[in-house]
Amino acid sequence: MTQYKIPLIPGDGIGPEIIAEGCKVIDAAGEKFGFDVEWVEYPHGADHYLETGELISEDSLAELNNYPVIYLGSIGDPRIEPGVLEKGILLAARFYFDQYVNLRPIKLLEGVWTPIKDKTPADIDFTVVRENTEDFYIGIGGRANKGVSKDLLEVSRSLYSAKFGLDIETDSEEIGYQIGMISKEGTQRVIRYAFDLAENRKKHVSSVDKANVLSDIYGFWREEFTNVASEHPGVTTDFNFVDAITMWFVKNPEWFDVVVTPNMFGDIITDLGAMVQGGLGLAPGGNINPEGTSMFEPIHGSAPKYKGQNKVNPIATIWAGAMMIEQLGEKEAADVIVSAIETNILEAKIRTYDMNGSSGTSDVGDDIARIVLGK
Amino acid sequence: MTQYKIPLIPGDGIGPEIIAEGCKVIDAAGEKFGFDVEWVEYPHGADHYLETGELISEDSLAELNNYPVIYLGSIGDPRIEPGVLEKGILLAARFYFDQYVNLRPIKLLEGVWTPIKDKTPADIDFTVVRENTEDFYIGIGGRANKGVSKDLLEVSRSLYSAKFGLDIETDSEEIGYQIGMISKEGTQRVIRYAFDLAENRKKHVSSVDKANVLSDIYGFWREEFTNVASEHPGVTTDFNFVDAITMWFVKNPEWFDVVVTPNMFGDIITDLGAMVQGGLGLAPGGNINPEGTSMFEPIHGSAPKYKGQNKVNPIATIWAGAMMIEQLGEKEAADVIVSAIETNILEAKIRTYDMNGSSGTSDVGDDIARIVLGK
Ligand SMILES: CC(C)[C@H](C(=O)O)[C@@H](O)C(=O)O
Ligand SMILES: CC(C)[C@H](C(=O)O)[C@@H](O)C(=O)O
Repeated sequence: MTQYKIPLIPGDGIGPEIIAEGCKVIDAAGEKFGFDVEWVEYPHGADHYLETGELISEDSLAELNNYPVIYLGSIGDPRIEPGVLEKGILLAARFYFDQYVNLRPIKLLEGVWTPIKDKTPADIDFTVVRENTEDFYIGIGGRANKGVSKDLLEVSRSLYSAKFGLDIETDSEEIGYQIGMISKEGTQRVIRYAFDLAENRKKHVSSVDKANVLSDIYGFWREEFTNVASEHPGVTTDFNFVDAITMWFVKNPEWFDVVVTPNMFGDIITDLGAMVQGGLGLAPGGNINPEGTSMFEPIHGSAPKYKGQNKVNPIATIWAGAMMIEQLGEKEAADVIVSAIETNILEAKIRTYDMNGSSGTSDVGDDIARIVLGK
Repeated sequence: MTQYKIPLIPGDGIGPEIIAEGCKVIDAAGEKFGFDVEWVEYPHGADHYLETGELISEDSLAELNNYPVIYLGSIGDPRIEPGVLEKGILLAARFYFDQYVNLRPIKLLEGVWTPIKDKTPADIDFTVVRENTEDFYIGIGGRANKGVSKDLLEVSRSLYSAKFGLDIETDSEEIGYQIGMISKEGTQRVIRYAFDLAENRKKHVSSVDKANVLSDIYGFWREEFTNVASEHPGVTTDFNFVDAITMWFVKNPEWFDVVVTPNMFGDIITDLGAMVQGGLGLAPGGNINPEGTSMFEPIHGSAPKYKGQNKVNPIATIWAGAMMIEQLGEKEAADVIVSAIETNILEAKIRTYDMNGSSGTSDVGDDIARIVLGK
């Protein structure tokens, strides 16, 4: 019997409820496919922060670093200013473990309602590879008052003037600013991952940027994309401005196979993608470091208003669990979980409210576990 | 007879064709409502740039500054690197004229097909107020090689470390970076504009940001939003993360009345909004400086592959023309143009290919002009 030890971070809000269902289904798959999981629970999240002042310590991260995978519920709590927990736990982990790929399948399952007209599961089946450690997520920025701002604005305006030959006046006195950076190495590795994925799919990679306006950062991205593309002559490519791709996700999702995107744009377009595939309750994600510790989670948030109500859809989390055990090498078990999710949906009896049902979170988990076990 | 003099910048690709239809319809409205327009054409765009090396000179801008409104076709040409024309002409004008509001109505007209299920014109009727002169559009960024990058990365990592108490290693050697800034004054004025608009609509303003991650720049935005909101106790508000709002645009567009957004996120969500209202061929925009020179344009691009084919939909441009003459005080004429567009669509005989028709650009312009004239 193969033994796995997997750390859990159930987190905030509905996190503990949905993670419980994910564990339930993986345990069922283990029973069927001959593996056993020891779950190791970590307390990080809002309550732990309010009690101890700790977000996640370097010690905890170093300990978690010994595991190949982590299972995460959701992070975020209305008692705490937006960003504190998300940056201090979720993003800190993504950065610390150097999980440079955020893998988000956009796939309409059979029997799922999508808000988009005239599309079938055959039309909505692509994967977004979101860069996950750089870009505007590096947390550099600040505020400036008169003195400093004058300097910064001087620099800004003179650069702007030099570029466009214009002289623009400003007398702003206070500003907020943010800096994004991408590195050659960081850009190449995620784009390579996307091309490798496409080699095993429909051999098409779409790049997302805004190189016509944020030219410094995304002109750089485009060049690296072009470099990596030249190593894959059998893969076709296209460039998409981020504004335009939101239209095509809705109008022509069938155009896409693998979509590779800088971090921030990836955040935006995968929420849209989640809606196209039927809603956040159905959208899983993996934060992947192919050589290190990967972390799997639903892409939705902690939905505080539904906390403890046994109401929300656990499918995104269960599906993320399938991606997680696939990463551990349990491909067959992972496939059986995904197909059990599909069976549960098609039977249309045991569904949560977001899918027009009235079953509870745990009912759906029970049902999927039952199907996995072939009962 | 009121006389107007309006500068035209037809621009690139399909720009000249669609602008011609816009002028045709406005001339018809003038005939009916007793005003006369003298159109003054400017050559700026790809051809002019390739011939003369000039994008748009400060002299031209200073001259255009004497007019209350400008009518713009579209800018962009595949012969020229992405961004050169867009930044050198379109964005240069938005900045030079300090057109701090980019006003983009998202309105499903009667008879228009939307890709979204179960929504009627009553559900899709809101306005996006996009900040138009700051944020990541200020054009500041660059590349850095080893030496400089080490410094910048040092700063970045030490800031990051200080924030999260983590020590993160990197050995990246080359980077691209971009800086965004928003000012107190620039943020307040656009948010005030949004609240004033909402006072005359359904009295609800939705703010867009990503304050949980890009906290420095958008935390600042949130504070200013809160400040301005306190001046409008009769207007309700909500905060939306940019990723989430893309879902609600698709799933629940009826939730929105006025949406106010920083520049870059506004770019992204208004393309999505355009698709929700039936496609780019139908989406107009105004770059507004309430005390200066405003500029009206369709929000679509120059569609080079359709250039000269009399094929594309001129409705976005004609609608932008209606917004333009409303700005000049011709509200009645503007309303008649919008209702003529609706009549043209409802009659369903004379439509371009994007609306499942087979008529030409000029046929649609002729038809709308005819309806305006009541013929
Ligand atoms: C919670 C937030 C920090 C996070 C992000 O922006 O990446 C979330 O939106 C996501 O997409 O995983
Ligand atoms: C062409 C481009 C520079 C422009 C922008 O990014 O603002 C366009 O997408 C728009 O929305 O008007």
